[in-house]
Amino acid sequence: METPWEYRYAYRMKGMKSSIIRELLKLTQKPEMISFAGGLPSPEVFPVDAFKAAAMRALDVHPEKALQYGTTEGYAPLREWIAERSGRYGLKVSAANISITSGSQQALDLLGRLFLNRGDRVIVENPTYLGAIQAWNAYGAEYIPVPMDENGMITEELEKALRKGAKFIYALPNFQNPSGVTLSLQRRQALVELADRYGVPIIEDDPYGQIRFDGEDLPTIASVDSQYRGKNDGFYNGNVIYLSTFSKLLAPGLRIAWAIGAETMIKKLVQAKQGADLHTSSFNQIAVHEVSQGGFLDEHVKLIRATYKERRDAMLEAMDELFPAEVTWTRPQGGMFLFVHLPKGMDATELFEKAVERNVAYVPGAAFHAVGGGENTMRMNFSYSTPDTIREGIARLGELLKEEIYKS
Amino acid sequence: METPWEYRYAYRMKGMKSSIIRELLKLTQKPEMISFAGGLPSPEVFPVDAFKAAAMRALDVHPEKALQYGTTEGYAPLREWIAERSGRYGLKVSAANISITSGSQQALDLLGRLFLNRGDRVIVENPTYLGAIQAWNAYGAEYIPVPMDENGMITEELEKALRKGAKFIYALPNFQNPSGVTLSLQRRQALVELADRYGVPIIEDDPYGQIRFDGEDLPTIASVDSQYRGKNDGFYNGNVIYLSTFSKLLAPGLRIAWAIGAETMIKKLVQAKQGADLHTSSFNQIAVHEVSQGGFLDEHVKLIRATYKERRDAMLEAMDELFPAEVTWTRPQGGMFLFVHLPKGMDATELFEKAVERNVAYVPGAAFHAVGGGENTMRMNFSYSTPDTIREGIARLGELLKEEIYKS
Repeated sequence: METPWEYRYAYRMKGMKSSIIRELLKLTQKPEMISFAGGLPSPEVFPVDAFKAAAMRALDVHPEKALQYGTTEGYAPLREWIAERSGRYGLKVSAANISITSGSQQALDLLGRLFLNRGDRVIVENPTYLGAIQAWNAYGAEYIPVPMDENGMITEELEKALRKGAKFIYALPNFQNPSGVTLSLQRRQALVELADRYGVPIIEDDPYGQIRFDGEDLPTIASVDSQYRGKNDGFYNGNVIYLSTFSKLLAPGLRIAWAIGAETMIKKLVQAKQGADLHTSSFNQIAVHEVSQGGFLDEHVKLIRATYKERRDAMLEAMDELFPAEVTWTRPQGGMFLFVHLPKGMDATELFEKAVERNVAYVPGAAFHAVGGGENTMRMNFSYSTPDTIREGIARLGELLKEEIYKS
Repeated sequence: METPWEYRYAYRMKGMKSSIIRELLKLTQKPEMISFAGGLPSPEVFPVDAFKAAAMRALDVHPEKALQYGTTEGYAPLREWIAERSGRYGLKVSAANISITSGSQQALDLLGRLFLNRGDRVIVENPTYLGAIQAWNAYGAEYIPVPMDENGMITEELEKALRKGAKFIYALPNFQNPSGVTLSLQRRQALVELADRYGVPIIEDDPYGQIRFDGEDLPTIASVDSQYRGKNDGFYNGNVIYLSTFSKLLAPGLRIAWAIGAETMIKKLVQAKQGADLHTSSFNQIAVHEVSQGGFLDEHVKLIRATYKERRDAMLEAMDELFPAEVTWTRPQGGMFLFVHLPKGMDATELFEKAVERNVAYVPGAAFHAVGGGENTMRMNFSYSTPDTIREGIARLGELLKEEIYKS
C-alpha cells in the first residue's frame, strides 16, 4: 500500500506553506512579464570576472581547504576579515564573535532554533521580512507587530510590545524589506535602551546597509548598543545579534552570510549549525574571501549603489508621473524595495491577477504583515529591472490603478 | 548589564552538544598526529583540475544563473541528471522526486523537521551515524537501537523495534559509518517488507554506495522497495527516502547532496528547506553538474575506489600483524571506515588520551551508540591517510593496545 505521508508529518508542519513570493515568482517567469515581485539583485552588477579569478585563486592556492570539510563556524581568514571590517562601522569585534552561515536565511532559522519554544513571542516591525516569519513559524513563534512611520519602528509602541513579553526583537533598520524605511538614529538609541531595560535581545538584520544612495550612514544597532555599554575590549559582548550577507554585495547564489554576537551565544549557534548542515561551503567562503581583498568590494559597492540609485529614481519619477494621486509610496534612501499604499478598501492581492494579465507583477503587502492587515499595500522591487523596463512596468501598473480607482 | 544568554535558550538546546568528533578533531590537529578519527575523504583524489574547469564553465556559460538566487528544490539539469543516473541502480525516478540539499546533513535535519514531534521514536542501527543523532536530538527524538551482525541490522530485532512504534527507520546500508558493515540483500528485502507491513517509512542514507572495492553491488533499499511495489510509472512513490551526496564522489567542501522520495513528501521537504536556507548554492550546483558530464564521474570513482582499497588493505594488513589477538575488527568491502572491538571491560574513551599522547587518534565508538553501550569499540577511518602513515599509526596503536591488555 502507499505511504500516507500527510498523516506522518510533525505538528510544526501544520500550516507551513511555501513562501507566497516564491510561488508568485513562478507565475511571473514569462519573458514578457515586468516583475517588481522578486527580491533579486541586478545581474548586470554581478562581478563575474572578479569572482571567476577569485574562484581560480581559491582552487590554485587552497585546493585542499576549498574542497575538504571545514569548521562549522567558518573559514578563519574570512571571519577575521569581517571582524576587521566591522570596526569601520564602529563595532569592535573579534573572529570569535562571528559565525559564517549559509545565507542570512540560515541565521534566522538557527536563531529560531536557539531561542524559540512553541508559543514564544517575537517582536517584529509591521510590515516585516517574510523570510523571518517563515523561519520562525517552524518553531511555533507568535508575533507582536510594532507599527512603523517614516522613521521606522515607533518607540512608544515598542515599549507596549515589550511589556507583553518576548524572546527577542527583530529589526531590519536600513531600507527595510519590504517598506524601504530606515530606522532613525534617535530610534536606534531608544531601541537599544528599551531592549536593555527589559532584558530582551535584538536581532538586527542588515543585508542592505552598505547600499545607501542618499544621506549619511547611520551606526548599526549593534554599534549603538556597544557604545551604550561603554567598555569594549575588542570582543563584543552586548545584547544585539547582527546579521549581514554577501548576497547583496557580491551575489546571492553563493549563499555566504554571517552572524555577529556575544561569543557565548555564537558558540551555541555553531552547535546548532553542526546539526543543521555541518558547515557552509568551504570553496565559496574562500572564493568570497579572495574576491573581497585589495579593496575590490569597496569599489564594487559603488557600482551597485550607482546602478540601484538610477533604478530607484526611475521608479519614483515614473510613479510621480503615472500613479493616481490617491496612491502613496515610500522614498527609500537605499536598498532594493519601496512600498506602496493603495486607498483604503483596495486589495492588492485581488489586483494581482489583473496586473499579471497586463504583464506586470509585485508582491501583495499583506504577506509581510505577521498577524494580518496591509491588504491595500504592495512591495515593489527596483533593483532587478533596467530603468526603461521600470518605466514601462510602472506605466502598466499606473493604468490599472487608475482604472480600478476611478471605475466607480 | 550583560545579557544572560544561557537563560534565554529554547528547551531543545538543553543537552545539545558540540559533536564529539568535531571536538576530537581539534585535538588531533598537530602535524605529528596520525589521525584515524576524522571522516575525511582523501585530498589526493580531489578532482581539482576537472572541478576548476567546471567552475569556469559554470561562470562562462551560466554566469547569471550561477550567481543569482535559485529555486529551493535545486538546479533542474542537476536533478534531471541524478534522476537519470538513479535508473542505473534500478530506481526509476523523475526530477520531481528529487530535492538538492546542502549536504546530506541538511537532509537529515529537514527530515527531522518534517516528521519528528518531541518524544517520537526513531529506529536506528546500533551503532549508527552520529550526525543523524545530532540532527534529530534538536527535534526531541528518542531512539530504538537495533543490533547488527556482519550482515547488518538483524531482522528479528527490527520487528521487535517496530512493535514499539516509530516515526521512521534509519538505515545506512553500504559500508556503514561507523561499522563498515553492509546490509545483505536478504535483509534489505526483509527490511522493506517489515517497514511496509508496519506502515513505517525508511530513510536510506547512502553516501558510500559507489565506493565499493570488493564484491557485487547490491540494489539500494529504495529500488528493492520499488520492485516490491511492482508498478513504477517513472515517478517513485514508495516508502523509502533515499539520501546521497557528492561529498564522497567529488568533494565535501561543495556541500551538494540530494534526497529522493515520493513527490508529495519531497514537496513538503522543499517547503521546510525554504525556511532553513532558501536554497543551496546555485554556483556549486551548476559546477557539480558541469563536472559530472561526459562520464567524468564514473572514471573518477574508479580512482577513489583504487585509492581507498589500497588504504583499507594497508590498515587490515597492519592490524592483522600488529594488533593483539584479543582485539577484533570488521573487514568492510568499501567506504571509509572500519570498526574495532576491544576486549570487554576496556574503555576506548579512557584509552583515547593515551593514544593522543602517542600521536595516534580514533573516535571512541560509544559516540555512535544512540542509547549507550559500545564503550569497548572504536571507529577507524582509512580513507584519509596514505598506506605508510596508516601502517605507522596502526603500529603505535597496536603497541598501546598490547600494553593495556597485557599489563595486568
